[in-house]
Amino acid sequence: MNLKDLKHDAASEAQAVRQRIRRGEITGHTSGLAPGCVQGNVAILPQALAADFLRFCQLNPKPCPLIGMSAPGDPALPALGENIDMRTDVPRYRVFRKGELVEEPTDISHIWRDDLVTFILGCSYSFEWALLEDGLTMHHMEEGKNVPMYKTNVQTTPAGPFHGPLVVSMRSFKPAQAIRAIQITSRFPGVHGAPVHIGLPDSIGIRDITKPDWGDAIDVPADELPLFWACGVTPQAVVAEAKPDFCITHAPGSMLVTDLKNSQLSVF
Amino acid sequence: MNLKDLKHDAASEAQAVRQRIRRGEITGHTSGLAPGCVQGNVAILPQALAADFLRFCQLNPKPCPLIGMSAPGDPALPALGENIDMRTDVPRYRVFRKGELVEEPTDISHIWRDDLVTFILGCSYSFEWALLEDGLTMHHMEEGKNVPMYKTNVQTTPAGPFHGPLVVSMRSFKPAQAIRAIQITSRFPGVHGAPVHIGLPDSIGIRDITKPDWGDAIDVPADELPLFWACGVTPQAVVAEAKPDFCITHAPGSMLVTDLKNSQLSVF
Repeated sequence: MNLKDLKHDAASEAQAVRQRIRRGEITGHTSGLAPGCVQGNVAILPQALAADFLRFCQLNPKPCPLIGMSAPGDPALPALGENIDMRTDVPRYRVFRKGELVEEPTDISHIWRDDLVTFILGCSYSFEWALLEDGLTMHHMEEGKNVPMYKTNVQTTPAGPFHGPLVVSMRSFKPAQAIRAIQITSRFPGVHGAPVHIGLPDSIGIRDITKPDWGDAIDVPADELPLFWACGVTPQAVVAEAKPDFCITHAPGSMLVTDLKNSQLSVF
Repeated sequence: MNLKDLKHDAASEAQAVRQRIRRGEITGHTSGLAPGCVQGNVAILPQALAADFLRFCQLNPKPCPLIGMSAPGDPALPALGENIDMRTDVPRYRVFRKGELVEEPTDISHIWRDDLVTFILGCSYSFEWALLEDGLTMHHMEEGKNVPMYKTNVQTTPAGPFHGPLVVSMRSFKPAQAIRAIQITSRFPGVHGAPVHIGLPDSIGIRDITKPDWGDAIDVPADELPLFWACGVTPQAVVAEAKPDFCITHAPGSMLVTDLKNSQLSVF
C-alpha cells in the first residue's frame, strides 16, 4: 500500500461515516468514528449575521478556530470533504429561533435557506487525539465522563451582537506531562492550540474547580496541575446569548466528520 | 546591507570580543557581550575521561546540551567560531587537580596538554535571550541577581565516574506567560530546552524554594508559577564530584563567546 492509498483510506472512511449519517443510520454522538479524522463544531447562521460571526472568530481564534466556511446557501464544504452536504451530514442538529431551542432534527433540508452560511470550528477531539498518540492519558476519558468546562472572568473580544466570557475545558497532568501537553497542543492552533491557563484557576475567575459550569466534575490529584484550554462551548454560549432570529448548531457531541486527518492540522 | 553582511556582523562582533579576551582586556563575566551570540559553558578534560563525559552528555541532554567538542589536544573549535583558541579565549578559567580548585588564570597556555578535549555546552543565556526577545521579563534580571538554582531528587543517568543529582534553575511567570515560556524554550533544545518541571517544587525534592543551593533567593509572587529548567551547574557539580586528576572549566559567568547566533539554535 502506498502513501496515496493510505490518504485515500482515511478520507474514504470519513466519507462512509457521512453516508451512514445521511441515511439516518447514525443519529447520536460521533466520538470514535473515522479515527484520526478531524471533527468539527457546527454553526449555521443567516448571511446577515455571518460577517459579524466571522469577525468574532477572527478576533477570538483560541475559542473559535475556524477550519471551514461555506458560501451563502451552499451546503457543500469542499475544503473539508468530498460531497459534504450540511443539510444531512451531521447526525443531529439543534435549531434555534430567537434564541429558543425549537427542534433537534437529524436532517435540516426542510428548513434550509439560500442565505445560510456554515461555519466549522476545530474541536478538542483533535488535540486530545494528539495527546493520546503521545501516550498522555486524561482522567475524564478514563472515568468515562465529559471534560469539565468553566466560565472564566476573561471576556472575549466582541463583534456585533456576539460577546461573552471565554469558556475553558480542564485536563490535569503531572508537571512534566503538563509541559509535554503544552508542547503537543501548541502544534495544533487550528483546534484551540496551547492551553490559555495553568495552575491558578482562581486568577481566571474559577472559584471552585469541583463545580464546572458544563460537563462533569473531575478530581485534580495533589501531584497534578490543572491545565485550561479555550473551549468550543464559548461560541455556542455567545450565539445563544445573541439570540439570533434563526440559527442551527450541531447537537452536543454530534459533530461534522471531515476528510482531514488530525495530523494535517499540525503546524510543525 | 544584505543578509550576508548581517550574518558577518554578528560573527565579527564575537570575534572582536574574543580578541579582547585574548589580549587580557576582558577578564570578568561575558554577560551582555556580543549580543545575540551563543555563549557556552566550558569543560576541558583529559582524553582518558572524555569518552565517559561525552556519554554522560548524551545520556543527559537537558542539563548537558553539547554544542561543540574538540579533537584531543586541538585548541580550535571551527564549528563554533573562526580562530577560536581555547587556551586564551575564555576570560577566566578554573583549574582543578584531584577535585581541588588550584588556580583561576586568564590563560591556560602554560598548562595545555596534547590529550585535552574541550566540551562546550549550551547555556541558559541563549533561551533567556529568546524569552526577552518575546517580551517576557525575569525577576532575577530585574533585581540584578543571579538566577536561583536547586539540587533536585532527580538523578542523572551515570556514565563512568560521572553521576549526581539534576540541578535546576528557577524562573517564575504568570500562568499565560509560563505557557509562552514553555513554547519559546521548547524551540531551543540545544540550550536546555523546555522546563523539566512546573508548579510543584516539592515533588522534585525542593523543600524550600526560598533557599536555593546556588545563586540568589528570588520571591515567587502568589499569582505566578515557578518553572524549573535543567541547569549547566549539573555537569559542573558532577565533574567536581568525580574529582578527576586534572580538569579545567570556565569561571562562573565567564563563558566562551561563539560566532553562532542564538536564533540559529532554534529548531523551528
